[in-house]
Amino acid sequence: MRGRFIVLEGVDGTGKTTLAKRLADLVGDAVVTSEPTSGRIGSALRSGELGDIPPAAEALLFAADRAIHTAEIEKVLESGRWVVCDRYMGSTVAYQSASMGEDADIEWLIGMQKNAVIEPDATFLLDMDPEESLRRVDSRGEDKSRFEKLDFLRDVREGYLRLAERFGYCVIDASKDRDAVFADVLEALREKGLYASE
Amino acid sequence: MRGRFIVLEGVDGTGKTTLAKRLADLVGDAVVTSEPTSGRIGSALRSGELGDIPPAAEALLFAADRAIHTAEIEKVLESGRWVVCDRYMGSTVAYQSASMGEDADIEWLIGMQKNAVIEPDATFLLDMDPEESLRRVDSRGEDKSRFEKLDFLRDVREGYLRLAERFGYCVIDASKDRDAVFADVLEALREKGLYASE
Repeated sequence: MRGRFIVLEGVDGTGKTTLAKRLADLVGDAVVTSEPTSGRIGSALRSGELGDIPPAAEALLFAADRAIHTAEIEKVLESGRWVVCDRYMGSTVAYQSASMGEDADIEWLIGMQKNAVIEPDATFLLDMDPEESLRRVDSRGEDKSRFEKLDFLRDVREGYLRLAERFGYCVIDASKDRDAVFADVLEALREKGLYASE
Repeated sequence: MRGRFIVLEGVDGTGKTTLAKRLADLVGDAVVTSEPTSGRIGSALRSGELGDIPPAAEALLFAADRAIHTAEIEKVLESGRWVVCDRYMGSTVAYQSASMGEDADIEWLIGMQKNAVIEPDATFLLDMDPEESLRRVDSRGEDKSRFEKLDFLRDVREGYLRLAERFGYCVIDASKDRDAVFADVLEALREKGLYASE
C-alpha cells in the first residue's frame, strides 16, 4: 500500500520539527524530510550564495528544489512508507508573497508550482501568534533570519491562513502544549481516515 | 532613451551567434548575451552537475536563471544600450515541451515564466530544416548534446513555430546565406520602427 504524505506548515517556532518526529515515531518507519532540501538548489537557497536575486527567481528556485524533492518523496510513498515533510507548497506562497508585499502575484506563486508538487494526504498548519513563535525561536538562541521579523511574520501567518481556507489545510492551534497539539493532529488524522488507533 | 531588447530564438546551427554579433556591430554598443547564462544556475544547467532531475525542475531552473538575467538586462536597457539575447522565453517552452512529449504542459511552461521575463521589442525565430541545422552543427565538430537529435529538433522547431504565431515572433528563413538573413532582420527592424538607416 502506498504511504501517506503529511505536510507540516507554519513559521519557525511553531513546533513543526517536534511534531514531525512524533508523527514518525507513531507510524514507525516514516521518512521525515524538510524544505528547502539539502540538495544542490536547496543548499544554495539556504546559504545565501546566490546573492541578491529577484524575488521571482527565488520563488522559482524554491519550486525547482521542491520538484526534485517531490520525485524523491514519490519513490518513498510508492515503497509504502509515510513521508512527513516540514514545509512544502504553502511555504513558498506564504513567505514569498509576504516578501513581495503589494507586488505579490499569488496566483502565479501557486500556478508555477503545479508540476512541482503532488497532493498531500493532509497538510497541517501550525498556527500561532507570531509574537509567541518569535519568542520561542529567541529562547533557542538561534539566529533570526530576515524571515523572522514580527511584521513580516504576521503577513506570513495571514498568507498561510488564506491558503488553509483555499486548500483545506487542517489548522492546528500551536500555542497549546506539545501533547495537546499532537492529540489534535492525531484526531484530525483519524477523522480523515489516515490513521486508526486505540 | 531606453535601449531595445532583441531576442534570437532557434535551434543550434541556425546562425543566432553570427546574427547577434552583426546586430551588435550595427547598433554600436549593444550588449550581446545568451541563455542559459554563465551565472550560478545557468552554469549548473549547462554542466549537468544537477544530474537526472525531473523535467519540471529543469524548466523551473531555466526560468529562475532567466529571472536573474532579466534583472540584469533591465539595467542595461535603462542605461540606453541595446541588448541582443541568444535564447529567451521561447527556448524553455520549445525545448522542454519537446522533451516532455505528450506530457508537456505548454500553458504551465509559459505561465510560470510570467514574472521571470520582460517583453522583448522583437523576437526573431531563425527557422531552418533541422537536417540542415544539424549538418551545420556537425561541420563545426561540436559535440552534439541530447538536444540535437533530429526527431527531437523537429519537435522543437514545431514548438517554436507555434510560439511565433502566438507571440508574434518574426520568423526568418535561416537557410538563406548570412547576408540575406541579416538583410531580412534589418528589414523587419525597420518595419517595426526599431531601426532607421540609409
